[in-house]
Amino acid sequence: MTDASPLSVVRAVADLRAVVGDWKRQGLKVALVPTMGALHEGHLTLVREAGRRADRVVASNFVNPTQFAAHEDLGRYPRRQEEDARLLAGAGCDLMFAPTVEEMYPDSFATSVVVAGPALELEGAFRPAMFGGVALVVSKLFNQVQPDVAVFGEKDYQQLMVIRRFTRDLDLPVDIVGAPTQRDGWGLALSSRNAYLSEAELEIARRLNGVLAEAGVMAASGRPLAEVEKTAQEALLAAGFDRVDYVAVRRADDLAPFEGDVADAPGRILAAAWLGQTRLIDNMAV
Amino acid sequence: MTDASPLSVVRAVADLRAVVGDWKRQGLKVALVPTMGALHEGHLTLVREAGRRADRVVASNFVNPTQFAAHEDLGRYPRRQEEDARLLAGAGCDLMFAPTVEEMYPDSFATSVVVAGPALELEGAFRPAMFGGVALVVSKLFNQVQPDVAVFGEKDYQQLMVIRRFTRDLDLPVDIVGAPTQRDGWGLALSSRNAYLSEAELEIARRLNGVLAEAGVMAASGRPLAEVEKTAQEALLAAGFDRVDYVAVRRADDLAPFEGDVADAPGRILAAAWLGQTRLIDNMAV
Repeated sequence: MTDASPLSVVRAVADLRAVVGDWKRQGLKVALVPTMGALHEGHLTLVREAGRRADRVVASNFVNPTQFAAHEDLGRYPRRQEEDARLLAGAGCDLMFAPTVEEMYPDSFATSVVVAGPALELEGAFRPAMFGGVALVVSKLFNQVQPDVAVFGEKDYQQLMVIRRFTRDLDLPVDIVGAPTQRDGWGLALSSRNAYLSEAELEIARRLNGVLAEAGVMAASGRPLAEVEKTAQEALLAAGFDRVDYVAVRRADDLAPFEGDVADAPGRILAAAWLGQTRLIDNMAV
Repeated sequence: MTDASPLSVVRAVADLRAVVGDWKRQGLKVALVPTMGALHEGHLTLVREAGRRADRVVASNFVNPTQFAAHEDLGRYPRRQEEDARLLAGAGCDLMFAPTVEEMYPDSFATSVVVAGPALELEGAFRPAMFGGVALVVSKLFNQVQPDVAVFGEKDYQQLMVIRRFTRDLDLPVDIVGAPTQRDGWGLALSSRNAYLSEAELEIARRLNGVLAEAGVMAASGRPLAEVEKTAQEALLAAGFDRVDYVAVRRADDLAPFEGDVADAPGRILAAAWLGQTRLIDNMAV
């Protein structure tokens, strides 16, 4: 960080704990917003939500290597911590925790956190390393910061379910809050990975939310879900997506499939699709 | 519990947190001694050590099913919580947390904690389910109680190493203390499983510590460790043990093998051996 940054930044767990411990001794309530940096308005909405729920807001800024598979985009994932700090300060964040990889995973590191249940299908089937990596880093962040509340975006809806699951299973004393997905003027869910898209790809990407919304209406009207999912997949390919990993309508509370192939309870439609080397996900309520 | 018990007993996490939260608000330091009940003097030594390090002592009393393999002694493991509570009160414990299996592992439970490094060999090779189960239940207990310090016996030396490892890896804010093994007048390490032994088996069991002590002297004198371990294995079989899972001299700090096959740094000699259906472990410094 340069001195120009108005936000306090700490890189060591000991320094983080000194600041947060001081707040806690004053009786202040602390919220955490975990991020991988490359912040956009979606993240800032989470920070503002955290500010409504606590007296102090910590944002972590760490591109977590354990949630990327070897062939994924760890190396090219955008990193711009100086701008992140400026944006966080503007949204009411009090402290940015930006540890090094060595601080998080020293040489002798030997522990993993494995989640079954909501982590097994959809993203879990296509990115088997990811949710274990997410559970590990979020567990660590919870123990490092010891927040009263943590805010996550519904953009990563399955991730939110997984985080709720292991937080409950491990009895982590943190209140998990999900915040609605932020979208651009064309409905495209904001994502750090949108920065990878060319102008032409961006136009196609902006069709994803509309296709899901239409499919959601079909599902809500009682159409067989296999048909709904197939229609949406074809619509995405017709719109110009190169490949569709999945379109799926699932139960909203645990992401299990609907038994009768119709959405007879609150559901969620989720999708992942590729434009060139870029993989986009989105979801919405059904 | 009967009303005669002088010790407070809670069975729900919410009740546990109410009591401990009250202590913390008073600024009191809290220690935890995790146990599986069937308490003996070894456990009570841990409780007294905890009392020297904190203002309040919680002992958990839970026979944790996730650390037993299907063929192991979960069913016959001794359970006597009423007597445990009386013993704990006498040793200065302030609260016994004795949850049900359903309170710890509700139906939708889906999370596991996996430790590599010090968990892979020795006990880990013979009881592959165990250290995962230990890491899971101890992680949960740490998050449920949120103690400042937790005390474990060196009797389970490898377990102590595993607990130190994942506590550090997951950034659990708990100070881990190891306390020396308690032994009977013949040097036999106290263990709840000693209750399984017949009189004749007990006589044989009491030879284990002497064999390890002699082997430790051999190792410290620079003899090749392969020879030391083989000699000790043969001595255990000659003493009447039915089977020896392992005798091993390892580095004390991480349980890694000594590279040159001689103990040229602080070491630990560890063993596991069978008498009928009962498996005993012991260890000591080299």
